[in-house]
Amino acid sequence: MDTNNKPQLTIYNSHSRKKEAFKPLNSPYVGMYVCGPTVYSDVHLGNVRTFIAFDVVYRYLQYLGYKVRYVRNITDVGHLVGDIDEGEDKIAKRARLENLEPMEIVQKYTNGFHDVMRIYNAISPSIEPQATGHIVEQIEMVQRILDNGYGYEVNGSVYFDVVKYNEEYPYGELSGRKIEDLLSGTREELEGQQEKKNPLDFAIWKKADKGHIMRWNSPWGVGFPGWHLECSVMSTKYLGETFDIHGGGMDLRFPHHECEIAQSVAADGKAPVQYWMHTNMLTVNGTKMSKSLNNSFLPHELISGDHPLLEQGYSPMTTRFFMLQSHYASTLDFSNEALQAAEKGYQRLMNACKALDKMHYDGDDNNYNQEETDAINQLVDQAFEHLSDDFSTPQAIARLFDLSKKINSYNEKKLDINNLNSNTLNKLKEAFPAIVFDILGLQDESASDNAEAMDGLMDLILDIRKEARDKKDWDTSDKIRNVLNTLNIVVKDGKEGSSWGMG
Amino acid sequence: MDTNNKPQLTIYNSHSRKKEAFKPLNSPYVGMYVCGPTVYSDVHLGNVRTFIAFDVVYRYLQYLGYKVRYVRNITDVGHLVGDIDEGEDKIAKRARLENLEPMEIVQKYTNGFHDVMRIYNAISPSIEPQATGHIVEQIEMVQRILDNGYGYEVNGSVYFDVVKYNEEYPYGELSGRKIEDLLSGTREELEGQQEKKNPLDFAIWKKADKGHIMRWNSPWGVGFPGWHLECSVMSTKYLGETFDIHGGGMDLRFPHHECEIAQSVAADGKAPVQYWMHTNMLTVNGTKMSKSLNNSFLPHELISGDHPLLEQGYSPMTTRFFMLQSHYASTLDFSNEALQAAEKGYQRLMNACKALDKMHYDGDDNNYNQEETDAINQLVDQAFEHLSDDFSTPQAIARLFDLSKKINSYNEKKLDINNLNSNTLNKLKEAFPAIVFDILGLQDESASDNAEAMDGLMDLILDIRKEARDKKDWDTSDKIRNVLNTLNIVVKDGKEGSSWGMG
Repeated sequence: MDTNNKPQLTIYNSHSRKKEAFKPLNSPYVGMYVCGPTVYSDVHLGNVRTFIAFDVVYRYLQYLGYKVRYVRNITDVGHLVGDIDEGEDKIAKRARLENLEPMEIVQKYTNGFHDVMRIYNAISPSIEPQATGHIVEQIEMVQRILDNGYGYEVNGSVYFDVVKYNEEYPYGELSGRKIEDLLSGTREELEGQQEKKNPLDFAIWKKADKGHIMRWNSPWGVGFPGWHLECSVMSTKYLGETFDIHGGGMDLRFPHHECEIAQSVAADGKAPVQYWMHTNMLTVNGTKMSKSLNNSFLPHELISGDHPLLEQGYSPMTTRFFMLQSHYASTLDFSNEALQAAEKGYQRLMNACKALDKMHYDGDDNNYNQEETDAINQLVDQAFEHLSDDFSTPQAIARLFDLSKKINSYNEKKLDINNLNSNTLNKLKEAFPAIVFDILGLQDESASDNAEAMDGLMDLILDIRKEARDKKDWDTSDKIRNVLNTLNIVVKDGKEGSSWGMG
Repeated sequence: MDTNNKPQLTIYNSHSRKKEAFKPLNSPYVGMYVCGPTVYSDVHLGNVRTFIAFDVVYRYLQYLGYKVRYVRNITDVGHLVGDIDEGEDKIAKRARLENLEPMEIVQKYTNGFHDVMRIYNAISPSIEPQATGHIVEQIEMVQRILDNGYGYEVNGSVYFDVVKYNEEYPYGELSGRKIEDLLSGTREELEGQQEKKNPLDFAIWKKADKGHIMRWNSPWGVGFPGWHLECSVMSTKYLGETFDIHGGGMDLRFPHHECEIAQSVAADGKAPVQYWMHTNMLTVNGTKMSKSLNNSFLPHELISGDHPLLEQGYSPMTTRFFMLQSHYASTLDFSNEALQAAEKGYQRLMNACKALDKMHYDGDDNNYNQEETDAINQLVDQAFEHLSDDFSTPQAIARLFDLSKKINSYNEKKLDINNLNSNTLNKLKEAFPAIVFDILGLQDESASDNAEAMDGLMDLILDIRKEARDKKDWDTSDKIRNVLNTLNIVVKDGKEGSSWGMG
């Protein structure tokens, strides 16, 4: 596929709140950073949605010919319960509850996260840095912020001075908040807040209390880095002080991403990100998905169907397809109806891929139907236009469905494939599976249906064998025996019928 | 299974060169550290052997009821080409060659390593720390060694003073070397060696040259940690200053493990390890496996058979089983003959597991054959005795083969299973699969044969259907059609015969 003449990619930039033409700083290289999981529990579906969305971004950028360095971090320290500056570290708390060393918790849930990503066919990022792996760099960034006058030390902790920063740079621009409103909306109600000059200030280095098990030496004593700091450090370490795309869930826009901007500007004088992208929330039957409402399910529950709200299990590719049927920036509503529809839609695409692959063409480039050819060309072009329009997967999928209809008609001889010229057929044969498999990242799951089908086929064969024997049709029963021997399938005949197994 | 009355575990301690009773420092907790891969290229089979060996150690310790914290590191910095103190960092060199950021190299080969471990069914360790994730702690250990007088700084690098150390502690004890021999055997021939007081000294912190891309600030300037240091830091951070088991390939015994001991003693005054365990080398047709001899193959080549020395591909479980048929401390020789024998042996165990699982028992505890019962009990007990004898998997497997013979005889009614009393049968039914699957970590691979079997069965069914149609046996052909419909298998009849696919 010639990707050079693909439509210009536009991205909705959450910072400017506009769709903008995508111009990488150093084309064809693209730097993309996505906030990864805090590995203190099973990854939730909201995360899965975010990472699948950016997986498609990663895949499509590569398809367009960009050389993408995709960095997605693992938060393994500094993320305190309640996402605030006081309280217990999420991982240390879990370690205490599960009676494990914090890094065992990190390992356990990082492994689980990787398993889920693999199941949903999300490509591994180029670099997956851990917060604990960048303590030196975090201490250095805190020092630069202090040196530049945007931080202050109190009692072994270092805070970012938001008010001071806001005198020179706009704080709140990304999330569209005004500092006056933020100031009037906060109250000093939490323990330890009195250390801050101002309730909007945030910790970039926290003193470790006696009981705090994750701790490092620093110029300010024993402590640990603030949660917002790691992303500033790791994104700029691997992508440069300014890079192209920063993504994450919408709930991270404030304060996390707002603080990232402030930290980078305060430390290095540069806004770090060209394009901010945010994925939207999940709802279930129209209600926000949340643990407290007991309407959130985990990936493995969605696959097994083992949850009161689920009528059945949904395969990973059904769910992936379902997620891509909504735009990443829209809310995504889970319902059994919608998932069941996605199951059928996914299957329709798989069938179209198979049919297209086997399609026999016997056309003539000197004698083809212009209208039919134009129709196919247009649908393929439109699919790419949608993808280039802020990664609009739902519209691209709609065009794939239009194309599937055509493919089915060719397949069922309702339309004649030979009406197309060979260029158009080749374009279709390249583009359709490229979008389905390479860009949307779907996989054919039918191989995993094999086990069930095997059981069914063996039942049938043993049934036919029994009848053949009853009819003394030894030819048939011998043939069956010989084939099963060749396939190393062993049949045991017992009183209650025959059973089989691989030899 | 009651694991409390299992035989006392003994371990061959490479340090004392004796088999010793295993007494954990803080039973039932066990700390085990194994030197992991340097992730700058595909993991080689020698590594795979080492990690499978310690996977069995990990599994068996857990089976015995120990609570094991298993730490296996990822070396992602500091390992210089030639395993020496001068020259290029292995990962940075690869990054230069592949034109990638070093951490992209780390990610790529760490992912590949994890894939290989998964394919060979090695359980993930409890913690998998990275060297770059522990720069702070490494700097601190260098400082402690300096403070205690066992290191010296020259020109931004810090060296360990082996001669000074050897005046107070025995250097070379682990590897059985004398410092006088080592001294007379070395020559100062490498660039930069002149910084050292003595050629035996080794770098614990190296100044980063201009071109060195992996670098951190330290009290001695910009540099990076010495290779030996990371294991001392990470093992003691996660397992304590003294811990139970340290493992690795035999080639690491000197200087790497020797230096680890010296560093820990110099920094903290304590020998770090109770039991040192070393796995032996691989040979191919009797010759040492090495890249330069062109007789080394990678895991994926072994699986595909795509290497001039391989007559066929060998499945991961065949290879795992093959490796466990040698003791970890013996050399292991790869040959097609031996692998083909292992393929059959592995299959024999799988078949025995299946037969045992389906075995129907109708015996009488008041009337059983004492001799036959004793024979089974003894074989099971012996298998565990072998496992407890320095993890002697080859001998344990020999007992499993003896038991397989028995199981086959029961299965083929040559022996009567009802001769056993129920306790013994239950013991066998528990112990046999426990050793095969839980301890040796084998898996049943037959599920992956399904695709091939499906093709064979469908050919058979389409053949039977054709005959039925020719004979106008509509009952049979209708039955086949209905079953295939139910299974969602679509048959296409064409001029050149029928084909099928999942619908």
